[in-house]
Amino acid sequence: MEKQFIKPSTLPGFMELLPADQIVFNNIMDIIRSNYEKGGFIPMDTPIIEKTEILLAKGGQETDKQIYRFTKGSNDISLRFDLTVPFARYSAQHMSDLTFPFRRYQIGKVFRGERNQKGRYREFYQCDIDIINNGELSIVNDAEIPSIIYSIFTEIGLSSFKIRINNRKILNGFFSYLGILNGVEVLRIIDKVDKIGMEAVCGELKELGLDEAAVDKIINFIDIKGSNQEILNSLAELNIENEDFKLGLDELSKVIYYIGCFGVPEKNYIIDLKIARGLEYYTGTVYETMLDDYPNIGSICSGGRYEDLAGHYTNQKLQGVGISIGLTRLFSQLRELGILKENASSSLTKVLVVPMGETMGYSVEVVKELRENNIISEVYLENNKFNKKLSYANKLRIPFVIIIGEEEVNSKILTLKDMNTGEQFSLSIEEIINKVKL
Amino acid sequence: MEKQFIKPSTLPGFMELLPADQIVFNNIMDIIRSNYEKGGFIPMDTPIIEKTEILLAKGGQETDKQIYRFTKGSNDISLRFDLTVPFARYSAQHMSDLTFPFRRYQIGKVFRGERNQKGRYREFYQCDIDIINNGELSIVNDAEIPSIIYSIFTEIGLSSFKIRINNRKILNGFFSYLGILNGVEVLRIIDKVDKIGMEAVCGELKELGLDEAAVDKIINFIDIKGSNQEILNSLAELNIENEDFKLGLDELSKVIYYIGCFGVPEKNYIIDLKIARGLEYYTGTVYETMLDDYPNIGSICSGGRYEDLAGHYTNQKLQGVGISIGLTRLFSQLRELGILKENASSSLTKVLVVPMGETMGYSVEVVKELRENNIISEVYLENNKFNKKLSYANKLRIPFVIIIGEEEVNSKILTLKDMNTGEQFSLSIEEIINKVKL
Repeated sequence: MEKQFIKPSTLPGFMELLPADQIVFNNIMDIIRSNYEKGGFIPMDTPIIEKTEILLAKGGQETDKQIYRFTKGSNDISLRFDLTVPFARYSAQHMSDLTFPFRRYQIGKVFRGERNQKGRYREFYQCDIDIINNGELSIVNDAEIPSIIYSIFTEIGLSSFKIRINNRKILNGFFSYLGILNGVEVLRIIDKVDKIGMEAVCGELKELGLDEAAVDKIINFIDIKGSNQEILNSLAELNIENEDFKLGLDELSKVIYYIGCFGVPEKNYIIDLKIARGLEYYTGTVYETMLDDYPNIGSICSGGRYEDLAGHYTNQKLQGVGISIGLTRLFSQLRELGILKENASSSLTKVLVVPMGETMGYSVEVVKELRENNIISEVYLENNKFNKKLSYANKLRIPFVIIIGEEEVNSKILTLKDMNTGEQFSLSIEEIINKVKL
Repeated sequence: MEKQFIKPSTLPGFMELLPADQIVFNNIMDIIRSNYEKGGFIPMDTPIIEKTEILLAKGGQETDKQIYRFTKGSNDISLRFDLTVPFARYSAQHMSDLTFPFRRYQIGKVFRGERNQKGRYREFYQCDIDIINNGELSIVNDAEIPSIIYSIFTEIGLSSFKIRINNRKILNGFFSYLGILNGVEVLRIIDKVDKIGMEAVCGELKELGLDEAAVDKIINFIDIKGSNQEILNSLAELNIENEDFKLGLDELSKVIYYIGCFGVPEKNYIIDLKIARGLEYYTGTVYETMLDDYPNIGSICSGGRYEDLAGHYTNQKLQGVGISIGLTRLFSQLRELGILKENASSSLTKVLVVPMGETMGYSVEVVKELRENNIISEVYLENNKFNKKLSYANKLRIPFVIIIGEEEVNSKILTLKDMNTGEQFSLSIEEIINKVKL
């Protein structure tokens, strides 16, 4: 009877990468992590499985349908669908052990059983930073968050991007100044302008019951253009008598000023009064980040200011500001657009040691010494022909090969081959270490 | 009506750490990762959710009961319970895209719905390395794997540990030389000797139907002691005429020789003929790792050689050797025993910049410069009294504070306070960077 095999496959919507891509992916994740850490953000790691009542405390969300929920024994449990809810739960649970202001980052997988479609993943990495306080939180924090994002995208190699910034208070203040009662719905419509266009937004606003004059005012307002300073000036010149508006304008001015102090070039951040963010959660500053040359892929990094992080778990008001990079989707888009630096190699290895004849013991000692000098290296351990060994280095694009025959064991002068140029050098192990470390 | 709060809590068996512990945990994970990478192992990241038929292809395991299994839509899906099965599936699925020998590492969470008890986790990190080949795989690989483990545990700071090594072929060959037919069951009993003691093992062997003479021979055999070379000599002197035994002894001799070449000190590896490993999966070399001073916690890192990694998914034979560190359990044990270097700090931050008066803009510029020089730093952004600001640095044990008043803004000579000694220095920003980088 023939053996039955189970076809090896993954579920749709779950990303899995081959080595060359995985290495690029991890590089980006490392850049995110190191910049988060450089800003003094503390690592956090919460469980992937939580009690369902914790995750769905907010309720009535799109997430209710998408959540991976199941029972184990008598427990109603679910997989986390974002990192914000676990962060809220963590902060409430461990409040007395934390020092405020509390800055944390978390990088981890989250799960959403979305309808399977291109560019949507059911398991994906989120990379979040937040700063929270048990009381007032200075507006300067709202300027620091985009400065961290700037340093990340610059290090990844995406120079043409813009962090778009707005303040909910400005929009809410303006709407209430216009006498509009259902401001939240207006926000939701405005938020769609990049997707559906200005005309469709007009239409939806009218359907909402706004008269032509009000719609015109809103359209003109969200379309205010210019440099950051020009937009701030235009907003001031509107002389809108509304406390929320004034507060929001003051906050936005400070955020814009301090982002400059944090070293973000003017070309990488811009006030955009169309940015509203769908979630009710946000109460002040809001961010989106767009690639200049690829507006169609939408925001690659979003967030904002909120006033009550953990209101479902504690009566302590935790104010905060944060931002999130959806790494899996971002990576998949950048790869598809071909704007990631190509990784030539399916290996991290810098040096392959190739033993010829009975030189395995010494070859192993050489690799030991390379590793002690933090050089990623391996010995070709299999008993194959020389060409097969070199072809392994070629396939993985390992840049250097050390060839060790019996002569080399005696002389301790080794042959180093540069696989890119084909050049060969006769060098001592110390000389090789210095050359390869460059 | 009073607002109802949901009590913030995690499920039992799920580890969650406060910042100071999380930092220590991440340090250990970084050490594991960097040593895996230094050995030329390629990162792999497989989905946490897989098709149940993939994960349970082997069947009949303890894992069937422990697995987190559920349905979503029409899919029967489960959370991975180890990293070996996903590795097998990945290797079979992507075989034509991989270069062999293929060395990979994976660090990730796995899930087992075990009975809740001390030291057992339902969600925990495994850190695996394996080297596989589509054909013969040299025995030298079996020596390299423990050398990587040696470098990890040494860097973590655990100097008193022993990697115990055996070879299944030796045991199987010896049993079949004794005429024992049910060798697998004998293996399972022997494997328990550290837990239940030699006497109980004797008893169980007799229950299995072995006569007193055979039991004595087995007990004497697994109790052979001495230096590695002495044990190898003793085994050779037994003159056991069995091909498996001879092959195993030859393999073990080579492994012991090459571990030395890889630089592992003799005190950190030892042949132990009692090591059998429960799983049928292993066919040659097997490893366990014990802390000399804490034998009770059992093996902190185990693995071995196998002949057919992905037999459920492909007819290609993938030979391999690998090892796994159960990081969550290890961390929890080391912490409990107090043998981890204490982390004094709940923060990674090295420098806190404290603005006094109207100096926020310049303070932000200072922190920008520190970060550009890769110094983890933050500004105290909140509007609080000086003492409150210093107390933040004290609580988080941030080692340096830069105090910036209006005088400092003008002179560009800053006050650096060493929080450990209380000393204060007047320095330029460049001087501070050099001092703090040390």
